[in-house]
Amino acid sequence: MLGKQKIQERIIEAVKAVKETNPMAGSITNSVTINFVANAQLAVGGSAAMVYLPDEGEFLAKAGGAMYVNVGTLLPIYEETLACVGKTLFEIKKPWVLDPVAIGIGSLRSKLLKEFKDYKPSVIRGNASEIIALAGLWELEGGTSSLQVRGVDSTNLVDDARIAAIELAKWTGGAVAVSGEIDLVTDGNIIVSSQGGSDLMEKITGAGCSLGGVMAIYLTSTSPFMAALTGTQIYNLAGRIAADKAEGTGSFYRHFLDELYKATAIDIANNYFEIKEV
Amino acid sequence: MLGKQKIQERIIEAVKAVKETNPMAGSITNSVTINFVANAQLAVGGSAAMVYLPDEGEFLAKAGGAMYVNVGTLLPIYEETLACVGKTLFEIKKPWVLDPVAIGIGSLRSKLLKEFKDYKPSVIRGNASEIIALAGLWELEGGTSSLQVRGVDSTNLVDDARIAAIELAKWTGGAVAVSGEIDLVTDGNIIVSSQGGSDLMEKITGAGCSLGGVMAIYLTSTSPFMAALTGTQIYNLAGRIAADKAEGTGSFYRHFLDELYKATAIDIANNYFEIKEV
Amino acid sequence: MLGKQKIQERIIEAVKAVKETNPMAGSITNSVTINFVANAQLAVGGSAAMVYLPDEGEFLAKAGGAMYVNVGTLLPIYEETLACVGKTLFEIKKPWVLDPVAIGIGSLRSKLLKEFKDYKPSVIRGNASEIIALAGLWELEGGTSSLQVRGVDSTNLVDDARIAAIELAKWTGGAVAVSGEIDLVTDGNIIVSSQGGSDLMEKITGAGCSLGGVMAIYLTSTSPFMAALTGTQIYNLAGRIAADKAEGTGSFYRHFLDELYKATAIDIANNYFEIKEV
Repeated sequence: MLGKQKIQERIIEAVKAVKETNPMAGSITNSVTINFVANAQLAVGGSAAMVYLPDEGEFLAKAGGAMYVNVGTLLPIYEETLACVGKTLFEIKKPWVLDPVAIGIGSLRSKLLKEFKDYKPSVIRGNASEIIALAGLWELEGGTSSLQVRGVDSTNLVDDARIAAIELAKWTGGAVAVSGEIDLVTDGNIIVSSQGGSDLMEKITGAGCSLGGVMAIYLTSTSPFMAALTGTQIYNLAGRIAADKAEGTGSFYRHFLDELYKATAIDIANNYFEIKEV
Repeated sequence: MLGKQKIQERIIEAVKAVKETNPMAGSITNSVTINFVANAQLAVGGSAAMVYLPDEGEFLAKAGGAMYVNVGTLLPIYEETLACVGKTLFEIKKPWVLDPVAIGIGSLRSKLLKEFKDYKPSVIRGNASEIIALAGLWELEGGTSSLQVRGVDSTNLVDDARIAAIELAKWTGGAVAVSGEIDLVTDGNIIVSSQGGSDLMEKITGAGCSLGGVMAIYLTSTSPFMAALTGTQIYNLAGRIAADKAEGTGSFYRHFLDELYKATAIDIANNYFEIKEV
Repeated sequence: MLGKQKIQERIIEAVKAVKETNPMAGSITNSVTINFVANAQLAVGGSAAMVYLPDEGEFLAKAGGAMYVNVGTLLPIYEETLACVGKTLFEIKKPWVLDPVAIGIGSLRSKLLKEFKDYKPSVIRGNASEIIALAGLWELEGGTSSLQVRGVDSTNLVDDARIAAIELAKWTGGAVAVSGEIDLVTDGNIIVSSQGGSDLMEKITGAGCSLGGVMAIYLTSTSPFMAALTGTQIYNLAGRIAADKAEGTGSFYRHFLDELYKATAIDIANNYFEIKEV
């Protein structure tokens, strides 16, 4: 099992590699937070590109170092695009992040998210409700088929999603990150809980989506587990500092991007986290 | 007729109810300002969800406490989605806000806005030009069929839209809010004029759209007239304070969201307004 | 050839005309940066309107003083909309700005960009890679058919695109602006290099797109060459000042919009630039 110091060293390596190489991770993502995703990816040192069409999605899957897929605001063409992108990523073994936003709303979303089971996303990121619902959709332990949808909020606590997260990670062979008051990241073998952030992160739209985009950037330079954890750590660090400086949600957003940009590899590694064996 | 003190009490109740219950109002809205709509809804204490597909729109219409429909940037699928959403909202008697943005541009927009006459939106929000044009499209008094389109600007003064607003409210049995230098809100019986805001609100995109989204949030907790007025009051309050602090449009946007977040129920109720009988 | 003082006088005239007349330039643009485009257009004194459907695009082409076309995030309907808009603009001799974002990704993008050769965009704006690739696609001197795509970054230096820019401008009879560390603007006869800006402009998404939108606003009031140069000058001015005030990318964005809003005609004209004959 990875020890705390080893994990911190790997966080530092991942952060530095991204800042030095400016890696590109393409996205198919929702239109509500698409600008925040791109700005967060740029702030941590990555490069962004967003598309909608099938052949363009395939192009980005092949051209980028990793990919971010968020099913937030589906359009009819996504039926073709997302199936094509998922299949391509799996076949060429390109790592990718899946954000099962608003799982439970609509038939196309369920169809696509079911298909993704076979394409094994390297990182799955969501709040507790979404992780539990995805495990349910994939018929894994810890999941449930019923979902209480309330906008993009989490109606479950992170701990309730523990088994679902572990089972999803075991199925994909990658990592799962559950966002909440204390975040959980697991590869199916070890669980890390990462602390920080702020209640204000739920009062701006896209904190979760942009975290998924940032994980995709780190995924170009490190393992799924380390990418999920590094993303979670920089978000908890930046969220905590930004909340101290903010007077409301407008200034929080501004400070949050500033802190993503300013965060050093060492500060990200030193943000408080704990390791537990599964 | 409602007296000023009674209106202020109801504003306070609506604002508090939203902050306590975090109600969800789904949206079908344009991609230019979709992020601002969501952030404004979150800032006042609500929850946001945006979709494009017909079955997803129907789901949100049923799941949310109210809905926001903005015809700003139509896509082909909207022909199906918006007709379905309007019909569903009317049939299940779920309150909703209609924002007839850019009325007069294109055939699909006219077709959809005409259909909405039968679905009686609880609140109609627009600038004077849009309100006059909608009354014209619905063949009501005070309307006109010709529209001088200039981006999203108002080319008419609020007073010119007085009769159109009253007639629209009488038709729907709900409320109409006309945005301008001095805003007008009416339920067809009484008219309230609300003051505040800033010229800077026309220099950022989405002040009107996000106001419509915020009205939908209040509509989950109060009547159409009180929701339209409460939204107008918090916008006039936040706009005035933000303009005092701003150095330009970038900082205005940031301060405006901060002030939406910080505004107390009493401050919103105390923002200056006047009551007139129709 | 225009002398420096004459050019500065024309910049001052264009900036003042826009502030006085609040001209509208419609856009078909990508969803990542659509909000930034609109806010930048409003900040400099213009008016914005964005659409997706063919008849709405045609309406804006006719109704506005100029138009902005950005092929960033194509949807299926764009095949019809962009062909219709390009043809309309050409036929009615309405000036327009083309932003060949992400040229080289996908078949529809290539098809549309090829068609635009006949519709002679008044201003073409891009980074060096995009300008070289467009000249290649249009089979002009200085172009190349191979393109190294890396998100929206430029992998070529501005000087490498010099011949491509001149040949494109000669073909259209308009102007070409190449964004980079030192920006180049040419009408095929004279070349101006404009300095300023900041590395932070590459760390927020949409600096290039919104510059294209701002050029379209100036294009309502001056020649293609002067519109491209005036846009470049205000961006270099605002970028430099904003970078001095910024603590990171969030505050840079906010300050940048503030500076676009505050920039005076004289300051824009006085931003450092040099003139060279071709």
